[in-house]
Amino acid sequence: MGVIDERISGLAELGQQLRVDAVRASARAGSGRPTSSMSAADLMAGLLAGHLHYDFEHPHRAGNDRLVFSKGHASPLLYAMLRAVGAIDEEQLMTYRRLGSDLEGHPTPRLPWVDVATGSLGQGLPIGVGMALGARLGGSSARVWVLCGDGEVAEGSMWEAFAAAADLGLGNLCAIVDVNRLGQTGPTRYEWDTAAYAARIGCFGWHTVEIDGHDPAEIDRALAAAEAEHSRPTAILARTKKGKGVAAAEDKEGLHGKPLQEPEKAVVELGGVRSATVRVSPPRSTEPRQRGERMPLVLPSFPVGTMAATRDGFGKGLEAVGEADPDVVVLDAEVGDSTRTAGFATSFPNRFIECYIAEQQMIGAAVGLQTQGWSPYAATFAAFLTRAHDFLRMAAISGSDLRVVGSHAGVSIGRDGPSQMGLEDLAMMRALWRSVVLYPCDANQAAHLTATMADLPGISYLRTTRAEAPVIYREDELFPVGGSKTLLSSKHDRIAIVAAGITVSESLQAAERLVQDGVPVRVIDAYSVKPLDAAAIRQAAADTGRVLTVEDHRPVGGLGDAVLDAVAGKVPDVRFAKLAVHGMPGSAGPAEQLAAAGIDAAAIVQAAQRLLA
Amino acid sequence: MGVIDERISGLAELGQQLRVDAVRASARAGSGRPTSSMSAADLMAGLLAGHLHYDFEHPHRAGNDRLVFSKGHASPLLYAMLRAVGAIDEEQLMTYRRLGSDLEGHPTPRLPWVDVATGSLGQGLPIGVGMALGARLGGSSARVWVLCGDGEVAEGSMWEAFAAAADLGLGNLCAIVDVNRLGQTGPTRYEWDTAAYAARIGCFGWHTVEIDGHDPAEIDRALAAAEAEHSRPTAILARTKKGKGVAAAEDKEGLHGKPLQEPEKAVVELGGVRSATVRVSPPRSTEPRQRGERMPLVLPSFPVGTMAATRDGFGKGLEAVGEADPDVVVLDAEVGDSTRTAGFATSFPNRFIECYIAEQQMIGAAVGLQTQGWSPYAATFAAFLTRAHDFLRMAAISGSDLRVVGSHAGVSIGRDGPSQMGLEDLAMMRALWRSVVLYPCDANQAAHLTATMADLPGISYLRTTRAEAPVIYREDELFPVGGSKTLLSSKHDRIAIVAAGITVSESLQAAERLVQDGVPVRVIDAYSVKPLDAAAIRQAAADTGRVLTVEDHRPVGGLGDAVLDAVAGKVPDVRFAKLAVHGMPGSAGPAEQLAAAGIDAAAIVQAAQRLLA
Repeated sequence: MGVIDERISGLAELGQQLRVDAVRASARAGSGRPTSSMSAADLMAGLLAGHLHYDFEHPHRAGNDRLVFSKGHASPLLYAMLRAVGAIDEEQLMTYRRLGSDLEGHPTPRLPWVDVATGSLGQGLPIGVGMALGARLGGSSARVWVLCGDGEVAEGSMWEAFAAAADLGLGNLCAIVDVNRLGQTGPTRYEWDTAAYAARIGCFGWHTVEIDGHDPAEIDRALAAAEAEHSRPTAILARTKKGKGVAAAEDKEGLHGKPLQEPEKAVVELGGVRSATVRVSPPRSTEPRQRGERMPLVLPSFPVGTMAATRDGFGKGLEAVGEADPDVVVLDAEVGDSTRTAGFATSFPNRFIECYIAEQQMIGAAVGLQTQGWSPYAATFAAFLTRAHDFLRMAAISGSDLRVVGSHAGVSIGRDGPSQMGLEDLAMMRALWRSVVLYPCDANQAAHLTATMADLPGISYLRTTRAEAPVIYREDELFPVGGSKTLLSSKHDRIAIVAAGITVSESLQAAERLVQDGVPVRVIDAYSVKPLDAAAIRQAAADTGRVLTVEDHRPVGGLGDAVLDAVAGKVPDVRFAKLAVHGMPGSAGPAEQLAAAGIDAAAIVQAAQRLLA
Repeated sequence: MGVIDERISGLAELGQQLRVDAVRASARAGSGRPTSSMSAADLMAGLLAGHLHYDFEHPHRAGNDRLVFSKGHASPLLYAMLRAVGAIDEEQLMTYRRLGSDLEGHPTPRLPWVDVATGSLGQGLPIGVGMALGARLGGSSARVWVLCGDGEVAEGSMWEAFAAAADLGLGNLCAIVDVNRLGQTGPTRYEWDTAAYAARIGCFGWHTVEIDGHDPAEIDRALAAAEAEHSRPTAILARTKKGKGVAAAEDKEGLHGKPLQEPEKAVVELGGVRSATVRVSPPRSTEPRQRGERMPLVLPSFPVGTMAATRDGFGKGLEAVGEADPDVVVLDAEVGDSTRTAGFATSFPNRFIECYIAEQQMIGAAVGLQTQGWSPYAATFAAFLTRAHDFLRMAAISGSDLRVVGSHAGVSIGRDGPSQMGLEDLAMMRALWRSVVLYPCDANQAAHLTATMADLPGISYLRTTRAEAPVIYREDELFPVGGSKTLLSSKHDRIAIVAAGITVSESLQAAERLVQDGVPVRVIDAYSVKPLDAAAIRQAAADTGRVLTVEDHRPVGGLGDAVLDAVAGKVPDVRFAKLAVHGMPGSAGPAEQLAAAGIDAAAIVQAAQRLLA
């Protein structure tokens, strides 16, 4: 046999080793997805031994290729690969799915070789698009490999990714689709018809290769063909068998979520335990750029007393941040003229990514970009961020550093009607793990908070408003995360009004009327909705005994609930009232909307009077 | 001129009338999207006058064709069509976007000719799939027409719909894509390349036709070709010009969200105001079946004291509901063996719709099906319902009657890890307008609540659990919406524990220990999380002065917040503690997970003791 034949037969052996380890780890855990791992084992053997360029000792080295297990349920295969390269040992492998183990049921970045959490299908490829784009933007020649399941190709987010990757000409991206015919419950839509996948993905502008996913030579050639591409992404459609190599499991329905019944027998059938160590190729020659040097930040200034929208404060602030920080990139879902990312797009076209109307791909790309050292801001209407809720949920599990901006919050957008109103976004964003939620009321505050987000870890959210509001803060005022601003107070305050965003100016107007009527009022701008300034609000509750919250949001999960959570039971004898949007708005002007929803100055005055009665 | 020529020239005239009315309505409103209406005016003229079969006097007649404006921002065009058929008059047209008018910025079912709200792009076609399927299931020969924008084709949900419609062989569905080249902010990805759209959509199995969208004869032929199809859906890719007919607006960027600057001049350029009345064809011959006759409901029974999962209670309950009610249809996103819709699928294969891993399409189809008189239940993992958040948000605006079931809620799923855990679903579902949120703790309760949902208006949500729990209720117990069950109480209770779902049995165990320690405890099963049984919980708070909530969910937006909202400030001198999932879970067994999250019996005992201290 020649050298090539030996290498190829070695790949077959490695595939069996990966299968054996997937079977063993799942058997030990008593749960897991060995059959989904066995179908893709030869594909990953070929990648690992021949085409992945990666320094496993330095997983965060910027020049490393990236490997995303979009079919995260095949985690035993990933862990078997890590054992095969010596990154983990036998003992660690056997902790799979145990309490405290980093080898979770679905991969997470608790393991240093995993960049993003997967397990919600259809997310790995959109994230891979962001990684590939991030590598290219940074001048790296690293490649991004995404192992996809066939079932997940049904997710629309995959097609957002197929469209975006082709459009961006991401020749450094390869999707390896494990077409094993069987989903969780039954056969997939196209079963083994790899031509059905290839035709569709090919139409989207991808280079496609159909192969037998258990033939090491075909796999090797397909991966090499992907590496030869520079302007088109490649999709390898690999026909495989779920449970491959073990007759009792091969291509059998009903075994998706289970370890094999007789694992020892299966291991024997697979040729026994092996412990070959794979030498993986080092990173490709071109190392990407270092993180850019920061310049001094010069924020915009809006004169106190003028009218300005917080979305404009964000837009101008974003341009300033972009000027100061060359690592900032901005993504928008084709509404940049409304969200006000358009200014950044004009000033820094190379760092602006037009995602078209594809919010899942937008957040996925942002997640991918931040793994490559970029600082992404992603913006669309607050209402449409709900489209990317699952991507945000997974980004939280990944521990991604992500800045999300939702414009057109609340009924105050006016005549466009309820479909365009972000009314549930605070609930969605507050519920995310370790999220920060910021909601400015004036343009200077918005610009400051935009800059503050640049250095926040985790997912931070800025909620902006379409309508103009009075500028009340000087441009040199500071707005720390977790803080608040007490805009009106006296020793004799009888009620505390807690507002944020558009309702701050309404609250100030209401307070003016109440003070005129002889009722001293405290007004707090809770711009940091999460974390909330619990101390200031508790103090206000203790001082006044009455707390009135006002928000342009549904009554569930927003500012009012945050205040209740901070105060209820912690300060004695406090009465509460929560003003929020209870009904279904129609079309009307901004002021009419605020009045109809019962969150304008007049409604605040009435609610305060009821609370005082 | 022959008859055909006269008809065709009449269509051109009608197109101009629709443009003029769209321009006039937007001008009067001072906002709106006339240019997006003008591009599609000839398409809609052709449809209205030649191919739509609809009784505008009886919009809810089951045999009517359906027309969905997926590009809801073209609402002025829809309202112009309604004037052209005499459904609304000039005066009503001029109320567009005004406070109180049913002619909203984006169409909603406040108008009887509108079945579903649109305005969040990419939703009309998935909903149209459900309508077309519902019509076919009911034996109707009605057709479904969906007017799509070109920009929205970037949404992944469109591709879920393209795949599903072809797979289902929906020959009664036609997507009319208004390829006007310009999105909101700038050019679309494929601009006027209708071949790019046709190739992609054709690859997905659709019949495609590319036309000049301003040529009435071509439009007429394309619509006729769609009507001639019976087994394949048709997509008409129509090349059009945004702002067509007015030189100052035609194919100009930057005019998306604005009325025309000189509307009077534009009306003159378009040939002036017309008031032709269109006679629309009556519904096609075959009227669909009537709603089915209900049979007596025979719910399953789980013996008290045994162990059973609530997902099994749901699954068996769903089969019983399906047996009793022939209008019930069930949708699942390829996890029927886990959600337990698999039993229904086996018993009633004709009323089960496998949606594969495409949650947006699943909810969209459910929304469409209920417009056709079906009662849909849609199920997947609670975690993955976040994927369809925007569809649920829009379904609430539509006032759709929809039953949603999320399985695998919370950390108690065990070893699969956080990607599979529904931990934000209560926040998401509670925030939806007029939603009902139910969370059973035992299998009999789950079956009952499943049956209760069948008759609930609006969006109702059932949260089920993977892990088994003790059956504590007899099968004849009743569980009204808005109720609760006090499982333990005495006159001397010093603390009230409010739980739901998996934490109920933990709370009962904790209570047992506390009672043994001489602390009388009240335990409330708040299975109706929204609406909450505020009266019972307030009474418990008043009786005990201490309320402890326990939930397998994030601390934001769930049961704890619902209880705070019901009690805080309404009952004096109450202390609160909220147990919920604060950290990021890993993989572990169910009991380990509950312990690690601090929501098991031991944690409840500790929290109670702290609250009592």
